[in-house]
Amino acid sequence: MQDCDSSGIDQRFQVRRLELLDKRKGFIELLQQLTVCDSVTDKDFEDRFKELSSLGDDHVIAVIEDEQSGMIVATGSVFIEKKFIRNCGKVAHIEDVVVDANTRGKQLGKKIVGFLTDHACSTGCYKVILDCNVDNKTFYEKCGFKQKEVQMVKYFI
Amino acid sequence: MQDCDSSGIDQRFQVRRLELLDKRKGFIELLQQLTVCDSVTDKDFEDRFKELSSLGDDHVIAVIEDEQSGMIVATGSVFIEKKFIRNCGKVAHIEDVVVDANTRGKQLGKKIVGFLTDHACSTGCYKVILDCNVDNKTFYEKCGFKQKEVQMVKYFI
Repeated sequence: MQDCDSSGIDQRFQVRRLELLDKRKGFIELLQQLTVCDSVTDKDFEDRFKELSSLGDDHVIAVIEDEQSGMIVATGSVFIEKKFIRNCGKVAHIEDVVVDANTRGKQLGKKIVGFLTDHACSTGCYKVILDCNVDNKTFYEKCGFKQKEVQMVKYFI
Repeated sequence: MQDCDSSGIDQRFQVRRLELLDKRKGFIELLQQLTVCDSVTDKDFEDRFKELSSLGDDHVIAVIEDEQSGMIVATGSVFIEKKFIRNCGKVAHIEDVVVDANTRGKQLGKKIVGFLTDHACSTGCYKVILDCNVDNKTFYEKCGFKQKEVQMVKYFI
């Protein structure tokens, strides 16, 4: 079935928060398209899910479920860092944004980032930041972001 | 008084976690050397301090107090992000590293970053990341970091 207009797409692909049952809807397999992510046991998934849920609005994982297939086809997360600078301000960090390779070209990435950015704004953050590959810079510019700094990393394993 | 050897410096400048009384030792004034940070009331400071302390090892602010002057002369923070990727892995984020302009050249920045990095490693993170100005890239390379991605930002205020 082909989507003929954007309202059809809007109805078919809605953003919501991650739910425990999303593990059965391909959530982990979607993350595997992003980076290393072996299969996770139901127990480990539930433990991490509860741990993150207990943080409430301070850590939100957004997903888009394809209403047609019942599969999770896009995700991204945001967490709120509390600081002393900027008058005890808060900064939102967007992480782990991925759209299923077979569901691209429907602006789902933009929808996820928009949802996470709105969350950051509504929780009173003074800015939202993310690190990305240079290849994805243009995408994030379309989402209203600008390049500012460089990311440095040190791996332990 | 001049420091004549590194062991003298080590004794005079020791890293420890932030304490409530550090507000009176110039902690906020030090942050003002980093970025916008108006004066914070004792109540706001205490509230944020308690909020962050409740996160335990998941959010640590390190400081160096100059044993001679009793002032806080360096600081940096690290928080632990819990993920589903990398087999429910954890990533440490280093933020807000600053050394007092009058106390530079004593490797205090390296000491703070080392403390935060050790914390990240000991809490089981698979990597530690930070965003910095291009001008500070060389410093972080000396601390064992490598440039990987670019940071994108969107300001709300």
